[in-house]
Amino acid sequence: MIVVMKRGTSEEAVKDVSGRIEEMGMKAHVIVGTDRTVLAAVGKESETLRQELEAHPQVEQAMPILAPYKIASRETKPEPSTVTVKSLKIGGGHIGVIAGPCSIESESQIFESAQRVKESGATGLRGGAFKPRTSPYSFQGMKEEGLKLLQAAGQETGLATVTEVMAPHDVDLVCRYADVLQIGARNMQNYTLLEAVGGVDTPVVLKRGASATMDEFLLAAEYILNGGNQQVILCERGIRTFESHTRFTLPLATVPYLQERTHLPVVIDPSHGTGVASLVPPMCLAAIAGGCDGLLIEVHPDPTHAVSDGPQSLTPEAFDDTMRRGHQVAAAVDRKLG
Amino acid sequence: MIVVMKRGTSEEAVKDVSGRIEEMGMKAHVIVGTDRTVLAAVGKESETLRQELEAHPQVEQAMPILAPYKIASRETKPEPSTVTVKSLKIGGGHIGVIAGPCSIESESQIFESAQRVKESGATGLRGGAFKPRTSPYSFQGMKEEGLKLLQAAGQETGLATVTEVMAPHDVDLVCRYADVLQIGARNMQNYTLLEAVGGVDTPVVLKRGASATMDEFLLAAEYILNGGNQQVILCERGIRTFESHTRFTLPLATVPYLQERTHLPVVIDPSHGTGVASLVPPMCLAAIAGGCDGLLIEVHPDPTHAVSDGPQSLTPEAFDDTMRRGHQVAAAVDRKLG
Amino acid sequence: MIVVMKRGTSEEAVKDVSGRIEEMGMKAHVIVGTDRTVLAAVGKESETLRQELEAHPQVEQAMPILAPYKIASRETKPEPSTVTVKSLKIGGGHIGVIAGPCSIESESQIFESAQRVKESGATGLRGGAFKPRTSPYSFQGMKEEGLKLLQAAGQETGLATVTEVMAPHDVDLVCRYADVLQIGARNMQNYTLLEAVGGVDTPVVLKRGASATMDEFLLAAEYILNGGNQQVILCERGIRTFESHTRFTLPLATVPYLQERTHLPVVIDPSHGTGVASLVPPMCLAAIAGGCDGLLIEVHPDPTHAVSDGPQSLTPEAFDDTMRRGHQVAAAVDRKLG
Amino acid sequence: MIVVMKRGTSEEAVKDVSGRIEEMGMKAHVIVGTDRTVLAAVGKESETLRQELEAHPQVEQAMPILAPYKIASRETKPEPSTVTVKSLKIGGGHIGVIAGPCSIESESQIFESAQRVKESGATGLRGGAFKPRTSPYSFQGMKEEGLKLLQAAGQETGLATVTEVMAPHDVDLVCRYADVLQIGARNMQNYTLLEAVGGVDTPVVLKRGASATMDEFLLAAEYILNGGNQQVILCERGIRTFESHTRFTLPLATVPYLQERTHLPVVIDPSHGTGVASLVPPMCLAAIAGGCDGLLIEVHPDPTHAVSDGPQSLTPEAFDDTMRRGHQVAAAVDRKLG
Repeated sequence: MIVVMKRGTSEEAVKDVSGRIEEMGMKAHVIVGTDRTVLAAVGKESETLRQELEAHPQVEQAMPILAPYKIASRETKPEPSTVTVKSLKIGGGHIGVIAGPCSIESESQIFESAQRVKESGATGLRGGAFKPRTSPYSFQGMKEEGLKLLQAAGQETGLATVTEVMAPHDVDLVCRYADVLQIGARNMQNYTLLEAVGGVDTPVVLKRGASATMDEFLLAAEYILNGGNQQVILCERGIRTFESHTRFTLPLATVPYLQERTHLPVVIDPSHGTGVASLVPPMCLAAIAGGCDGLLIEVHPDPTHAVSDGPQSLTPEAFDDTMRRGHQVAAAVDRKLG
Repeated sequence: MIVVMKRGTSEEAVKDVSGRIEEMGMKAHVIVGTDRTVLAAVGKESETLRQELEAHPQVEQAMPILAPYKIASRETKPEPSTVTVKSLKIGGGHIGVIAGPCSIESESQIFESAQRVKESGATGLRGGAFKPRTSPYSFQGMKEEGLKLLQAAGQETGLATVTEVMAPHDVDLVCRYADVLQIGARNMQNYTLLEAVGGVDTPVVLKRGASATMDEFLLAAEYILNGGNQQVILCERGIRTFESHTRFTLPLATVPYLQERTHLPVVIDPSHGTGVASLVPPMCLAAIAGGCDGLLIEVHPDPTHAVSDGPQSLTPEAFDDTMRRGHQVAAAVDRKLG
Repeated sequence: MIVVMKRGTSEEAVKDVSGRIEEMGMKAHVIVGTDRTVLAAVGKESETLRQELEAHPQVEQAMPILAPYKIASRETKPEPSTVTVKSLKIGGGHIGVIAGPCSIESESQIFESAQRVKESGATGLRGGAFKPRTSPYSFQGMKEEGLKLLQAAGQETGLATVTEVMAPHDVDLVCRYADVLQIGARNMQNYTLLEAVGGVDTPVVLKRGASATMDEFLLAAEYILNGGNQQVILCERGIRTFESHTRFTLPLATVPYLQERTHLPVVIDPSHGTGVASLVPPMCLAAIAGGCDGLLIEVHPDPTHAVSDGPQSLTPEAFDDTMRRGHQVAAAVDRKLG
Repeated sequence: MIVVMKRGTSEEAVKDVSGRIEEMGMKAHVIVGTDRTVLAAVGKESETLRQELEAHPQVEQAMPILAPYKIASRETKPEPSTVTVKSLKIGGGHIGVIAGPCSIESESQIFESAQRVKESGATGLRGGAFKPRTSPYSFQGMKEEGLKLLQAAGQETGLATVTEVMAPHDVDLVCRYADVLQIGARNMQNYTLLEAVGGVDTPVVLKRGASATMDEFLLAAEYILNGGNQQVILCERGIRTFESHTRFTLPLATVPYLQERTHLPVVIDPSHGTGVASLVPPMCLAAIAGGCDGLLIEVHPDPTHAVSDGPQSLTPEAFDDTMRRGHQVAAAVDRKLG
């Protein structure tokens, strides 16, 4: 940690700060500059101490040097992690493709979705049974009944199923039916939920919050990892910015940035990332070329009659075309789609 | 709802869309313009229908006309709501002042905090027992033990107590000890939690999510109101923007904007809104002059030894000075502080 | 234009507004809804009228239906435009590659840069002679001397040269030496400069401002087009968001979004878009797969001794490797790189 | 400057970096930590060197310690600067009030505006003659004819006149007519324009760019100061964020933040900062209580017929009421309005 003292600080204040650093088991190096005195604190960093020092009236700022996440870091585990569930392979040269409707609406809808995405090469099936909805007056999902339909559709097609869990008390229930849990963007910092999924064995897709920094995202993953569940898949699904022509702004540089810092696989959700069906196929191809480990794509047999997210859902035909082109792009970057 | 068709759309597509609008119980007016055909759908709007129509391949956009929230709207209840708990009055010309430490750390710390903020004119006491922390390695709060200390400090001073609840299964526990529940910014769209606090009688301070729009904020309140709990206090605590010289960006225009649209009282948290103790007093005064119904301020007997949020906590002396000046500003806008 | 009246508006106010609409040569349709009265104004829209109506005390909002840009619109010119200068082809299946250093620093530096990027397959040479620098104390560019060196390096290699112009009074000077003008992001709304480059024949790369919306971006292009210069190339170079791990946030969905609305070619600048050299190659590949018409890439023979933008500049070796992989990705999407 | 080396960096790389630091006339302190080696470079910092080091393949990051602006800094000039032109006093306990229409539209409009705002207590008159407009098809201002009208209205009322200059070649012209120049938000980083106004004696209101950081803002001021013009007034007019219910987001914490770091006065423009007339009065009061040195307010005799910015312009009556309440708030914080 680097502690910058205010201009004209007293020797006493410097002693105060260095004393506090040493009290916490770190070593303090004092560097007297031309305009400022700076202390370098060597040893195990702590955010609590950093805040404490920054609250000192003579301290201008206290900056961390080390990344705050540990288990998620590539420094802890240099080789990339992969997640494999049934036919779904994420990482290790495989780009997993999880496709399906936003919400599970009926038996025929989820079965037709599963069939069609499977035919086009998907390896995972998504479908929401517990739906976080902005308005209390919107459709909230079919809940357990939906989970049953999803499981059946997964079993019929052999696709790994992925579905959201919204509350700690539902984790066990969802685990009974689904192959992979999803934590939605709005719950990325719902710590009791993160702790709950950290306590099970089912892999977890953790979506980045719409205004989460990279450190916050990796620390959210750290909650799950720290709970014991090592199968965490990070998902970039777009951030909230001033742009309003897309639902969110999709920053694909997240993929290589995270891959430099964490061993966890990184998947992209271009459906929420853009919110506009016509923009989804080019962003799928861009994500593949950019090195992602997987895709999460909303596909609906009839988007104009979807109960949710119709405007951003691909038709099965558009999905098929995207997969066809995606295979070629994947091959161009020496990876395998699906 | 206004539906704009794409350029050169067919008559058939217009019929399709108007048919679907009428199917849903609305009346469709078709307006043929020079460049575009537009449909005005008159009747009860539905977000589901809007999305459905926007997913139509011949529709360019579908725009809502009406606000999506109902119970929170001033159109439903024109007169402002107030919340009164013990000495704490929020709204109706009273600016409630809820002050205290970020975390409850010990008996002496919370009792000294309570005593000092009470002496300076606070009417509520804040203090966190369940702490949502970015890192799993940070102090997570004293939990039930902390709640007991908070309750005792509240009883001794007569201050209404305000504390965060993080999980649906903790709502009953927190209600047993606290006068007012707080939903943190990270949980603003934790819908199972909103539903849980919607089912109790204790007033709720709902913090705006760091990237929540006004509609999303009011719809989150709507979840609680719809559950039966009418005592909801909205809290602006800063949004995430590109600004990095403050922890968040505090948009005070939230206050008059919300007051035009909702009857719910609006309070400001300048501590999180700035993250810097020296910026808190001027932002308190600005919020008072801007018409807020309350303030939520972090005050710690010794900020440099706080376990959390030290850099943004006021000393009791700084808080006292802020209150003294705040009374004058409140009087200038015909309101009463505390 | 759609005008939404406030709740409970008077008939008189509706007459006022419809009268004003008809006065301006449009036709007004009044639609009386259950909660609101809405007017649809049919005819040539005007932003001035829209603002005027929105300022009416009984009007809640006035929303435009038509895009505000005209010459830039695909509705005006459905087939995509291309720009060809010497070996540089942008659009029409060709992905132009403009590479080179941030600043022209010396004869040897720009000649070596030109030679190396040419060998790797670039078709354009970038290099700044007039440098917009955040600080007045930073290197401001070699100015005319730099332009001469750039021209000479372009002539030797046959590469088309691209360089920034910062002031209206420099446009003629820069046109004498360069093949393509660049308007920097900070000048995207410098309208006197846009008008000045609208008056010459030299093609213009117009960079998106860091907080410009799509409409603002296209209207900036419209200034140039309206001045008579039809060779405008749009460049996405990243937007300012809360993300701080990259210099800017690069939203690649800009490419397909713009391609749906304008005939102008769209190029990507992943160097400024990320600010981090290691993230540039994957974002180049992503941009190619996502359908861009060109790339603008900072390459420096010795980035650790660059006077500006070293951290985001590729070495010639890294650029060569990127081009090699880029050719394969371009082929996978049926396009030609360089 | 603090340079953090990558994990497992070689001794040779550390020597490289420390050698380069000493070459540039700074002293390098090497601190070997448990996980990282850090170098503290003591002496005159340079952004060029910082970037150079950050481009080194073994360097993780290079962080500046000192503020990059010098003349604008309170460390250079501790006492606050004030600007006085005719009756307009900005700073030193005086809150200057510059009011008037967005655009000068006609003789009667600007004279009536001047008269009305003067009667209500304004000390400056704003009015645009050169208008930066998003669309080339919008009204572009009355130019020199407008300047003449503004000057005449200023002379009649004794108000100091403030008007925008958009191009370096217009600076002399505008200086002939106006008392204070304004640099618009879109031109905050138009460096040739900043240099041009740095060369004259007329005071300058410099508006913050919609996505400018504090350092960028102060460095833009530094361009003017460095040119010799010491009368710079900083103006916060709102930033671009995800919020769409207001035209921009107005971060009032800018006022105390800047006042801690610079001696330059800080004024607030709540008209552009909100874009909504009803939100302007509370934000005026908030700005006054928050410690601003001045206000820039759009007032139009008839906002519903304004050629620009009608929705955010106050009527003379609303302005008068705001001033009346503003005086009381100013008195409460020991300052004088107007």
